Amino acid sequence: MSVSVMAAILQRTMRLRAALRPLYPHSTLTCTARLSPADVHSPFLACGSGQFVASTRKLHVEPKSSPDGAPERLPFSKVTEEDLAYFRKILAGRTITDPDLLESSNVDWLKTVKGSSEVLLRPQTTEEVSQILSYCNSRNLAVNPQGGNTGLVGGSVPVYDEIILSTSLMNNILTFDNISGILTCQAGCVLENLSLYLEERDYIMPLDLGAKGSCQIGGNVATNAGGLRLLRYGSLHGTVLGLEVVLADGRVLDCLATLRKDNTGYDLKQLFIGSEGTLGVITAVSILCPRKPKSTNVVFLGCETFEELLKTFQLCRGMLGEILSAFEFLDSECMRLLNTHLKLPNPITDCPFYIVIETSGSDQDHDSQKLDNFLEKAMASTLVTDGTVATEQSKIKDLWSMRERVTEALTHDGFTYKYDISLPVERIYQLVTDMRQHLGDRAKSVVGYGHVGDGNLHLNITSPAKDPALLAAIEPFVYEWTASCQGSISAEHGLGLKKRNYIYYSKPSQAVALMGNIKAMLDPKGILNPYKTLPDDLK
Amino acid sequence: MSVSVMAAILQRTMRLRAALRPLYPHSTLTCTARLSPADVHSPFLACGSGQFVASTRKLHVEPKSSPDGAPERLPFSKVTEEDLAYFRKILAGRTITDPDLLESSNVDWLKTVKGSSEVLLRPQTTEEVSQILSYCNSRNLAVNPQGGNTGLVGGSVPVYDEIILSTSLMNNILTFDNISGILTCQAGCVLENLSLYLEERDYIMPLDLGAKGSCQIGGNVATNAGGLRLLRYGSLHGTVLGLEVVLADGRVLDCLATLRKDNTGYDLKQLFIGSEGTLGVITAVSILCPRKPKSTNVVFLGCETFEELLKTFQLCRGMLGEILSAFEFLDSECMRLLNTHLKLPNPITDCPFYIVIETSGSDQDHDSQKLDNFLEKAMASTLVTDGTVATEQSKIKDLWSMRERVTEALTHDGFTYKYDISLPVERIYQLVTDMRQHLGDRAKSVVGYGHVGDGNLHLNITSPAKDPALLAAIEPFVYEWTASCQGSISAEHGLGLKKRNYIYYSKPSQAVALMGNIKAMLDPKGILNPYKTLPDDLK
Repeated sequence: MSVSVMAAILQRTMRLRAALRPLYPHSTLTCTARLSPADVHSPFLACGSGQFVASTRKLHVEPKSSPDGAPERLPFSKVTEEDLAYFRKILAGRTITDPDLLESSNVDWLKTVKGSSEVLLRPQTTEEVSQILSYCNSRNLAVNPQGGNTGLVGGSVPVYDEIILSTSLMNNILTFDNISGILTCQAGCVLENLSLYLEERDYIMPLDLGAKGSCQIGGNVATNAGGLRLLRYGSLHGTVLGLEVVLADGRVLDCLATLRKDNTGYDLKQLFIGSEGTLGVITAVSILCPRKPKSTNVVFLGCETFEELLKTFQLCRGMLGEILSAFEFLDSECMRLLNTHLKLPNPITDCPFYIVIETSGSDQDHDSQKLDNFLEKAMASTLVTDGTVATEQSKIKDLWSMRERVTEALTHDGFTYKYDISLPVERIYQLVTDMRQHLGDRAKSVVGYGHVGDGNLHLNITSPAKDPALLAAIEPFVYEWTASCQGSISAEHGLGLKKRNYIYYSKPSQAVALMGNIKAMLDPKGILNPYKTLPDDLK
Repeated sequence: MSVSVMAAILQRTMRLRAALRPLYPHSTLTCTARLSPADVHSPFLACGSGQFVASTRKLHVEPKSSPDGAPERLPFSKVTEEDLAYFRKILAGRTITDPDLLESSNVDWLKTVKGSSEVLLRPQTTEEVSQILSYCNSRNLAVNPQGGNTGLVGGSVPVYDEIILSTSLMNNILTFDNISGILTCQAGCVLENLSLYLEERDYIMPLDLGAKGSCQIGGNVATNAGGLRLLRYGSLHGTVLGLEVVLADGRVLDCLATLRKDNTGYDLKQLFIGSEGTLGVITAVSILCPRKPKSTNVVFLGCETFEELLKTFQLCRGMLGEILSAFEFLDSECMRLLNTHLKLPNPITDCPFYIVIETSGSDQDHDSQKLDNFLEKAMASTLVTDGTVATEQSKIKDLWSMRERVTEALTHDGFTYKYDISLPVERIYQLVTDMRQHLGDRAKSVVGYGHVGDGNLHLNITSPAKDPALLAAIEPFVYEWTASCQGSISAEHGLGLKKRNYIYYSKPSQAVALMGNIKAMLDPKGILNPYKTLPDDLK
């Protein structure tokens, strides 16, 4: 490369660096809301505009008595006074029947699914969970295990009158090994509390979600939560080392190993990771935690085409290597919603696509150099048209908000149809383009954002109000499109109540039948989280 | 820190750097042997001394007709002429009955287990595997699935006359996505071939074993192989994205997703990872591959105590951070065997403990700086007493040999009792010390080495010849000791035939019973790899 070319690249990079414009100030409003969309993968609660308040928790959708397409109530027993007396005996003061106290546990965060449970049980120990399930199984009482109730697919609330078994009071950290970084804790520990505990000890949790302030580690594991750090630290199937699970009949399955390696028989704990509370109630977790990075940088870039965005991803993986910790994107429609509804100004010039890259490493100088080299190359090759860099914590938060507050912006745009799709990475944006063309002017907005590094698209379609005709145009189009690329119709949200019957778009009937066999083996009466995960046609 | 202190540290570090002495020359002998001990986690075949030759494959142990403690033959059918005619029809030219050709498939690499199978089937397609199993299941014929036959626990060979189903001819790479790094291939692909294929495309496999020249990816997945890169890239439960499996009755379970995220129902593939061929035959694998590192360094260090070694590990994790890719150890007894039997000179001064650290990263300058800083600190704090560094490929190989050829040195020391133990990392060497004290002069050598980063100890005990009295002194002492620390009696080798009945030392009976239920559900006639993994007392 000639000196003059190099100089030109450096000039451009300097311009890029200088482009670190003052961003909108981060809101100082106190956020006490249980703000927990599972697809908001930010460490920062998106409470800037203050429209989410704990006491009201109002969203655009009014709860309904039962969700569309919910199957008929199965012939479980109804809770009797004798049952309540039993629960009160083993859980004195922790057997909740007050309808006001039950309300928030009966409805999901999106307020699209509302159950009518009349009992909320709050055990503190594994033994208590065991007693509850043993009793419910013998009485044929259905149970809805509930963690932070932050899911988006109606998996965490009762559909009818299932007893709610909350893990909220099971919130003790059990052990932490400072040499291996292995943490064991009860299932009800809130993710953010675990993060704070670990950060004091120079470690971090291997997962991070926007819902961290409410979601619980047991629920994270039960739903195989993905989130922001998956690109770097992998899925919970790799980082969870052990689980303690209470089975439907009350038996306690102790697989709470704290070992990185253990090849003694089948790895049973894996069955429960992502089973959405249908196979057992997770009561404790052991998990491998990475060291806390010493340096973090965030870059916000603009691209002209999605193809250039993918080339930037490739370049980035090669040049940032081991320090790359996130590669996220949003499209110009997302930016429009951020501008319009949240008054967030675009930190760079307008582009069709925006990228958020995060690096985290053990040496600030090295990380900055790697990032500079990457940016030089990306600018020189004109893959990227504009950009800004943040190294300070507050600026990092502001840049992350551009990605993380898209969900919030969408709630202001109208009724939102949400899809969480996994695809071969080179196809992820084609679905947005095709959907836009397919829907024409029937939709208000069709936006795409998500985790490029994981091949995970969040496709969201808004309309002024709930619109069955629009829904009929979206589904099964979106599922058929996904299936034609061997994609997954639920990358990280799970199936819960809402998507259970779409499982065949991503799994062959042979596999679904085997899932049914496993369910029948572990929960023969089907009392655990009924109507969820598995399709209705399964016998 | 004062300038003079800093200068002193730098001087010491220079001395350390200068300590890069000429190592023994790496052997140039061609190695064609099927050299595959699963606990030799080197990318380099340990064939320098030439005592392993493919045609003879002699070790110290003579094969026996059936292993100690093998259960009675179960009432499976015997192979008839009609059966052979069927196999010859579907596998023309690939139904092997010549005893000479069958011999190497009937005996394990350690030559401690020898079966008497009279049929070796070599399918090329999933459809053929499905036809074989469907037929065998209907005929009640037992089947021993076999990959590279490199296991150490007698899991990969028949115990009696099970039909050997070899995946060796299923060796096609199916797809590779250069953007996501996701590879799909048939189960019989040899690990080293996959590595070579990927390296040309700037990627690597997420696992590496000494057995790479023979072992097959299907077998790696079936045994949940660990190895050298686990510290960096995690276990196969995280990196394997999809599997195609043929069930005992011939049904094909297609879970061969090529997605990083997929939360549609239970993650069935996990059941087969580590199930040692007892639940199904893996026919294809999709796996997430990391980018090829641009720089690699290896350091060989000496420590006075195991406590200091652990402190060095902690320091190392903090200072090398994201570029640390291996932290292995051996004790002075291992060094003595390397010196005595393989004539490998100690590259540094004699110490009670030796460490092999590997870094791999995307920037040679940054990696060297991080390593220098770490070494300065380690020397300054006197955690480490001597050391040498290698950056060239040949020197790196030589340093790695000190760790990797311990297994080979042991075979020259006598009959070897091998244990593969997972423990909380701070306890791993205590077991060696306690065992030495416990055995006194009954053992010839008691040596410890392994993967500190994974808490995985390879404890090996030698004796001039097979010695039942010595064995009785070792077992159950070693298992009870391990169980008392909540360790695993098989960290990465699996249970196979040899360790199946010791499962209760690491798993509660509740869990073992559930494993039995899963086996009964997936393989009701028990035809798949009988006598393996699960204990005899399971009904």
